[in-house]
Amino acid sequence: MSIPPKTNSIKTFNDPIYGFITIDDPLLFRIIEHPHFQRLRRITQLGLTNLVYGGANHSRFQHALGAMNLMRSAVSTLRSKGIEISEEEERAAKAAILLHDIGHGPYSHALENTIVQGVNHEVIGLQIMQNMNAEFAGALDMAIDIYTDNYSVRFLHQLVSSQLDTDRLDYLKRDSFFTGVSEGVIGSERIIKMLNVHQGNLAVDAKGVYSMEKFLIARRLMYWQVYLHKTVVSAEFLLMNILIRAKEMAASGMELDASTSMRYFLYRKDVCEIKNSEEWLKHFVKLDDYDMLYSIKQWIDCVDPLLSNMCKRLINRRLLKTKNVDRPLSAEALKDLQRKGAEALGFSADEMRYLIFQKSVSNTAYTTKNDSITILYKDGTAKDISEAATIFQFSNLESIETKHFIYFPDEVPFQ
Amino acid sequence: MSIPPKTNSIKTFNDPIYGFITIDDPLLFRIIEHPHFQRLRRITQLGLTNLVYGGANHSRFQHALGAMNLMRSAVSTLRSKGIEISEEEERAAKAAILLHDIGHGPYSHALENTIVQGVNHEVIGLQIMQNMNAEFAGALDMAIDIYTDNYSVRFLHQLVSSQLDTDRLDYLKRDSFFTGVSEGVIGSERIIKMLNVHQGNLAVDAKGVYSMEKFLIARRLMYWQVYLHKTVVSAEFLLMNILIRAKEMAASGMELDASTSMRYFLYRKDVCEIKNSEEWLKHFVKLDDYDMLYSIKQWIDCVDPLLSNMCKRLINRRLLKTKNVDRPLSAEALKDLQRKGAEALGFSADEMRYLIFQKSVSNTAYTTKNDSITILYKDGTAKDISEAATIFQFSNLESIETKHFIYFPDEVPFQ
Amino acid sequence: MSIPPKTNSIKTFNDPIYGFITIDDPLLFRIIEHPHFQRLRRITQLGLTNLVYGGANHSRFQHALGAMNLMRSAVSTLRSKGIEISEEEERAAKAAILLHDIGHGPYSHALENTIVQGVNHEVIGLQIMQNMNAEFAGALDMAIDIYTDNYSVRFLHQLVSSQLDTDRLDYLKRDSFFTGVSEGVIGSERIIKMLNVHQGNLAVDAKGVYSMEKFLIARRLMYWQVYLHKTVVSAEFLLMNILIRAKEMAASGMELDASTSMRYFLYRKDVCEIKNSEEWLKHFVKLDDYDMLYSIKQWIDCVDPLLSNMCKRLINRRLLKTKNVDRPLSAEALKDLQRKGAEALGFSADEMRYLIFQKSVSNTAYTTKNDSITILYKDGTAKDISEAATIFQFSNLESIETKHFIYFPDEVPFQ
Amino acid sequence: MSIPPKTNSIKTFNDPIYGFITIDDPLLFRIIEHPHFQRLRRITQLGLTNLVYGGANHSRFQHALGAMNLMRSAVSTLRSKGIEISEEEERAAKAAILLHDIGHGPYSHALENTIVQGVNHEVIGLQIMQNMNAEFAGALDMAIDIYTDNYSVRFLHQLVSSQLDTDRLDYLKRDSFFTGVSEGVIGSERIIKMLNVHQGNLAVDAKGVYSMEKFLIARRLMYWQVYLHKTVVSAEFLLMNILIRAKEMAASGMELDASTSMRYFLYRKDVCEIKNSEEWLKHFVKLDDYDMLYSIKQWIDCVDPLLSNMCKRLINRRLLKTKNVDRPLSAEALKDLQRKGAEALGFSADEMRYLIFQKSVSNTAYTTKNDSITILYKDGTAKDISEAATIFQFSNLESIETKHFIYFPDEVPFQ
Repeated sequence: MSIPPKTNSIKTFNDPIYGFITIDDPLLFRIIEHPHFQRLRRITQLGLTNLVYGGANHSRFQHALGAMNLMRSAVSTLRSKGIEISEEEERAAKAAILLHDIGHGPYSHALENTIVQGVNHEVIGLQIMQNMNAEFAGALDMAIDIYTDNYSVRFLHQLVSSQLDTDRLDYLKRDSFFTGVSEGVIGSERIIKMLNVHQGNLAVDAKGVYSMEKFLIARRLMYWQVYLHKTVVSAEFLLMNILIRAKEMAASGMELDASTSMRYFLYRKDVCEIKNSEEWLKHFVKLDDYDMLYSIKQWIDCVDPLLSNMCKRLINRRLLKTKNVDRPLSAEALKDLQRKGAEALGFSADEMRYLIFQKSVSNTAYTTKNDSITILYKDGTAKDISEAATIFQFSNLESIETKHFIYFPDEVPFQ
Repeated sequence: MSIPPKTNSIKTFNDPIYGFITIDDPLLFRIIEHPHFQRLRRITQLGLTNLVYGGANHSRFQHALGAMNLMRSAVSTLRSKGIEISEEEERAAKAAILLHDIGHGPYSHALENTIVQGVNHEVIGLQIMQNMNAEFAGALDMAIDIYTDNYSVRFLHQLVSSQLDTDRLDYLKRDSFFTGVSEGVIGSERIIKMLNVHQGNLAVDAKGVYSMEKFLIARRLMYWQVYLHKTVVSAEFLLMNILIRAKEMAASGMELDASTSMRYFLYRKDVCEIKNSEEWLKHFVKLDDYDMLYSIKQWIDCVDPLLSNMCKRLINRRLLKTKNVDRPLSAEALKDLQRKGAEALGFSADEMRYLIFQKSVSNTAYTTKNDSITILYKDGTAKDISEAATIFQFSNLESIETKHFIYFPDEVPFQ
Repeated sequence: MSIPPKTNSIKTFNDPIYGFITIDDPLLFRIIEHPHFQRLRRITQLGLTNLVYGGANHSRFQHALGAMNLMRSAVSTLRSKGIEISEEEERAAKAAILLHDIGHGPYSHALENTIVQGVNHEVIGLQIMQNMNAEFAGALDMAIDIYTDNYSVRFLHQLVSSQLDTDRLDYLKRDSFFTGVSEGVIGSERIIKMLNVHQGNLAVDAKGVYSMEKFLIARRLMYWQVYLHKTVVSAEFLLMNILIRAKEMAASGMELDASTSMRYFLYRKDVCEIKNSEEWLKHFVKLDDYDMLYSIKQWIDCVDPLLSNMCKRLINRRLLKTKNVDRPLSAEALKDLQRKGAEALGFSADEMRYLIFQKSVSNTAYTTKNDSITILYKDGTAKDISEAATIFQFSNLESIETKHFIYFPDEVPFQ
Repeated sequence: MSIPPKTNSIKTFNDPIYGFITIDDPLLFRIIEHPHFQRLRRITQLGLTNLVYGGANHSRFQHALGAMNLMRSAVSTLRSKGIEISEEEERAAKAAILLHDIGHGPYSHALENTIVQGVNHEVIGLQIMQNMNAEFAGALDMAIDIYTDNYSVRFLHQLVSSQLDTDRLDYLKRDSFFTGVSEGVIGSERIIKMLNVHQGNLAVDAKGVYSMEKFLIARRLMYWQVYLHKTVVSAEFLLMNILIRAKEMAASGMELDASTSMRYFLYRKDVCEIKNSEEWLKHFVKLDDYDMLYSIKQWIDCVDPLLSNMCKRLINRRLLKTKNVDRPLSAEALKDLQRKGAEALGFSADEMRYLIFQKSVSNTAYTTKNDSITILYKDGTAKDISEAATIFQFSNLESIETKHFIYFPDEVPFQ
């Protein structure tokens, strides 16, 4: 039995960050009410980060609404500065930002690198948008053009995706609120009031230069303090190894308890491709955090002791310990460590690669190569933020920082 | 393979409300690290409330830590006023408040009234504490005495459970923060600084009387605006009906996909009793939100169209509509409505009782019958808050308010 | 030499409550830049309240800007609901709210009841507006009509002055922020989004009923906890007695150090009247907190020991103590107390009426007689908030509460 | 008549930042109740900054209490880490931080460089402490030793005065709160929980390194965005020129209206010296913001048109405009500009140096030369923050930045 679509007039969403978020456009209603979008309620924005920052259970659903709210505000600011933006363009830009994360699965990073292979959340997201567009009889045409940067008015795309997009302006503020890390607090409203357009591209009024510097710094701090927090990363690697092991067990014929859609990916042998998306996508859009954690809880009782061990660690928060080292261990030293671990834990030395390993983590997310931020002066001239910045040497902010970690169970003595 | 217990010295938990919560006691560590307590990470404090207040995904784990943090603060305040509290009593009071919600299952209210029958979260909680106490060789003796009000120093129990306990002081503040409903903002620290002891019972210094009035009012507002919000309640009734239907289907022999522990309760025929808790409790302590939502998602594809329909509604947030009526419908009028619904939706009139029904909701949680709040004056005299209150007539706050609602699917035209 | 008026394009004001407040209208610029308005920078919103709430040094200037900011927001909300408001009406409503407190002097309540006699801040305010209107060639015509409720569109007046005006919506929030009294925190934005118009009058959408109840309660709490805090009131009575004594000394020919304008009022014998406002008003618009506190500091060294004593108390915060009594003292008992005080302090019994006296304080500011709040339902019907309220019995909120206090110096033993 | 000292038991101060600040020590009471300390209520922390950030009217009184509150918290943290601090040391450290700003006059920077010559607020402060110590019979001995770094336990001095002192930890947070500049928001509590002692000196636990980096950055941002904001600096230079001109007029025999104490400094010819502090200090401790602004308001009507003009500008906020230039003007170019101004305004070219001038502003307050911040690792080793920092290159933060500004009235066309 199909449930017919609801009709609506105006809808208000509660949000602890902005108070109220109001929707008054039927297209935006339909997007939000669509099961694909409602699914985002069940996908946490920060995955396993809640194992370190216990308040960080906020969903991608709420972030998407929040970013749309900032888009509304940005459009209103730009219009007040004489930039023309049509009603249709506003609607399309809002639709684009609502949908910008629609391709994310649960614990996206771990998922994409393990059991969903061949596509990533951006590719998947665009395909989902196109499918929804077909369902909506082309109503998302302009939104998709904006999202893919094929629309003539470039700054609309930049509001959706750039160094200064409403995505970041929302998530930094939101993640800071829910983690309680005050370092990430940014004046999103302040920044939005400073937005302008210069030669068709998004720019920032000169009086906002301090706020921009603060914004870039806050982002960097959030990377090391939250997104790349060593314990968060440790949990993510454990999850990845769980999924890799599960897929290995599935390939070997072991029967694993999981939801229908999760089993589809565990037992699928081929990589996913856009050309055959019809099949795998109908499973993908059913996946959420509940499929993932359900399986991991069930696998505690599975017959493979290694998989069981890893699942028990994740569920009971007995994560792998981490040691920050100046340089990676030699292959030999690592093997040696794995041998010690094998003795302590009763696994084979080969199996220990799931529990003892090394990884390098870089804050690469921070390049200012493309789409850098333009500061616009009252006299109409413009400068790149790296030149306009007055408080910090910008080279500093562009540098890539890499840290090397060794991961190991607490049963293995490792000084 | 068993994972040996970790040793620790000091541990800090991040919390967006209090910033940092610090633990420096090995017993409290052991409680927090116990799988029973870690399970609370996966149980949301407010259940389906996040369908209305999208930020309200906070866990019972974080609430328990927060309440313990307030206990630390309350003990410190009372000591500064000359009340003697030993180290052992402080530890026990903290252990008691940490464990006060340990008996909650996922979506507790719905669970207890449907598939877990015969016991409630308080009975279960006490049993879990006793089991942990056996495991900890009696280290929780005093904590259990405080929890059950069998300890000689009564105000310690009152800090755990009374009209003024650290439970409420935390949850009102926390729920207000995550829902964004500023009406519930209370000055928990302010209230705690006003705590005192009068004739062995918890009391409030007279200068805190306005804060107490505000606290009682905030609680009432939160009831109607959040906990009993009509859409939240509608979602909870839908969930209850899903579970009732599932149990009915299970009884009829239908095979339902669910986790091992969830299946245990679905297919169990007897009520649970403390005397046979050894069996059912080992399943209960594995249940969390993931078992519940996993099943509901899977049951969208089950063969019973009614169960499938209800599950689809909950997952895609197509909840039952609600109509507030001055008095309940007559049995006849309700049946009539169910018949109309049956036609519109293709179910039998009898099945429609799952989708069309009426309920009365009362804010009964608010009686001041027992353990009312004592205001302590500088001259040593004391009054009940209902007499001491100067801003509001207290009778007003004690009244019970009842509202009557009819629930129905949006496909059924009902004005 | 006259300083020619500046020209401006757009101006942004920093505010810790709203972040930014933007002005883009030349008339509003001119008002803000006018010396009469700049004077409000030097008049604290809450007078001597900072002797109890040390953070409460915020100015009437900032409050006026804040209220105007809420007016902008209210106009935008009403327009989004289809209410037509012209550009000119918006400008006039903003001008009216900017100027609504322009007639306040320093420590207004004390001032008006002592040395500025015959007029109050509302009468003075209107006269100042009219003078500015003449200076601005009639540009304030409509603003004055709105302020005086002579404009045809009544809800605009109600946004300036009613139970629900932007004045209160700003000051409750602002006073709460600067005092730190969380009891007064209200969701101003939430309330504003609920505003509507019913039969030409301001109304509140039914879904805002809880917020309205919270707003009325918050106001009442702020009255007792801040505005009528017994120590604040004690300081205000001391200030009034200082001014009365100073005027008495001035009448007796004593030379008192004070600013030119302050001296004008101290030595003036007649009451002020609108018909002769040309003379006294040019002095009034120069008065600010600095005139007042300067004099009081200087008078510490004056030859009248009573005036000196009172001034020293205020400056060094040795305020009169207060005792809350169930009923006022008899005239005889009061005299007796004053005699005791005379002995202890070396003043005459008659002079002691400045230091020992009794007063009754009522929260009369709270009547809902006129202009009560209308709740508007979706079906177009409307109810008074006193009927619509669902959480509190409204009679409760309307009651007048009176408290009786005796004031006395701490040198006088009084149990 | 002298007013005898009050006796007290416990006292609570309201503060919008920390909620409550509690004092339970009679010595600390006596300090706070002393007229010298009460005077700080009438001295704003940020002087003329409120002309740009309208909420920034907070007093030095409130800051001193706030810093003492952080001292309490720091002592408690250090004790919990096993550092021994006696009751007497705690009291003395709190007394020292309460008094650390006691030597500040109104608009200190302007005052010290103009009419109070020969001493600065630090010299004055120490003298006031010594006088109070005499009055308190030596009770401040240890506090003074801590303040002057003559006490054996060095970290107590460092908590009062260093790169990491409770002074900064309070004022950054406080100034950020009252200005609304979120860039300065720092997690003071977080930082305090990270404090430790290494070889007798204050240090920061390694896990606090990000917070320290954020703290240093926030400070730098606050410098440019608030403390050295070009309009704030413009107002301060105007105030200095007013005072210089007034002193010049006083020297020439003109009669200037001012408070007794202000006149003392205006007409005094010699510089102030500690050896003759008995005379000038009794005037200094009476000065507050009210003396200053009173005079400036009165001088609007004085006979010197230049002084009148400058005072009118400050009072009505018609400040000098500023132009940021890459390098200072040549002496000739400046003279030329002053000549143009003289024509436009009717002053002599020489007098125009009060209205047209150039200044360079440097953020020199930021050197890490002495007393740099030490990061303490778990293994007991320590590093300077400049080496330990992982997010920013520290050289960057140490660099001195200088900006050149030309100041001129808006009547003078200057592109």
